[in-house]
Amino acid sequence: MNEATPLRGRRVVILVEQDYDHLDLDTTRAALAGAGAVVQVVGPIQGRIYRSRDGQQIAAEIAASAIRVADVDAVIIPGGFAADRIRLRHAMVDLVRDAVAAGKPVAAIDHGPSVLINAKALSGRQITCWPSIAVDAKNAGARYVDRPVVEDGNVITARKSDDLPFFTSAIIRQLTASS
Amino acid sequence: MNEATPLRGRRVVILVEQDYDHLDLDTTRAALAGAGAVVQVVGPIQGRIYRSRDGQQIAAEIAASAIRVADVDAVIIPGGFAADRIRLRHAMVDLVRDAVAAGKPVAAIDHGPSVLINAKALSGRQITCWPSIAVDAKNAGARYVDRPVVEDGNVITARKSDDLPFFTSAIIRQLTASS
Repeated sequence: MNEATPLRGRRVVILVEQDYDHLDLDTTRAALAGAGAVVQVVGPIQGRIYRSRDGQQIAAEIAASAIRVADVDAVIIPGGFAADRIRLRHAMVDLVRDAVAAGKPVAAIDHGPSVLINAKALSGRQITCWPSIAVDAKNAGARYVDRPVVEDGNVITARKSDDLPFFTSAIIRQLTASS
Repeated sequence: MNEATPLRGRRVVILVEQDYDHLDLDTTRAALAGAGAVVQVVGPIQGRIYRSRDGQQIAAEIAASAIRVADVDAVIIPGGFAADRIRLRHAMVDLVRDAVAAGKPVAAIDHGPSVLINAKALSGRQITCWPSIAVDAKNAGARYVDRPVVEDGNVITARKSDDLPFFTSAIIRQLTASS
């Protein structure tokens, strides 16, 4: 293992939809790519352009329906209202559910943890999230805490973009440990 | 009672925050005002300007903290991601909870019903809403159905802006019946 690129050979997918938080997406992608991982942006439809809240845009490199969870090492759910749309995309919710079940790191920030509700991944699990969805997480069986980052098994959660340094460190640490 | 203005003398408040759905707000306000009601836009802070998703804007005429539920005949929660912000405003959630408890019509459309989750108004209640929050409503104890408008006691819910004719009719009917 190369110390500078501990994630060489690992494949990480970041989920995207309209109104994604571009700071979450860009920062996480850069941190993981910098550690040597192959990072791919996965959306509902391959090649479609998705816009962030503040006018940035990004193309989905692969459709969620074309991803086999066996070929992925981690799944990232950025923040923003994109999560509200991802929740309605069956292939994306299935990918999250299957990755959680397979014990692979699944990391969600800001509103991203709402997708974990649809994936039925929160029962009895300790998490954090943007405060507006804390009640939804609790009603889904989660134990909500207000901390910058929370790791409960392979599920990593953070509250907001300010927490990105902790969020990306936790993802890289879990991926490194599982290699 | 004047047939053309059955709601004369009634006071209805519409809750507003950033990213409100202006079609929901404008259509509901026009329908209620047309039926004779006094309709006031209530936000977190009096006089502050709130913007809709599509660039419209509106000033909050009154702060939620200045409203006594005894002085209000109905509370409307429009759609849009405003609901995600309203959920975090204690005075607005309290107003909704108190209005539901007082048996006054409380009407929420699109993402608006998520505020009813924070108001703890959904246990055992039949509702509809935008599909992305259906799982949250169910986890909060609601019986979710996919219909244009649902009335369960004094709580009126609708799915989306397309349902506005049914939504406004239900609000006017309940307010007329309670006069």
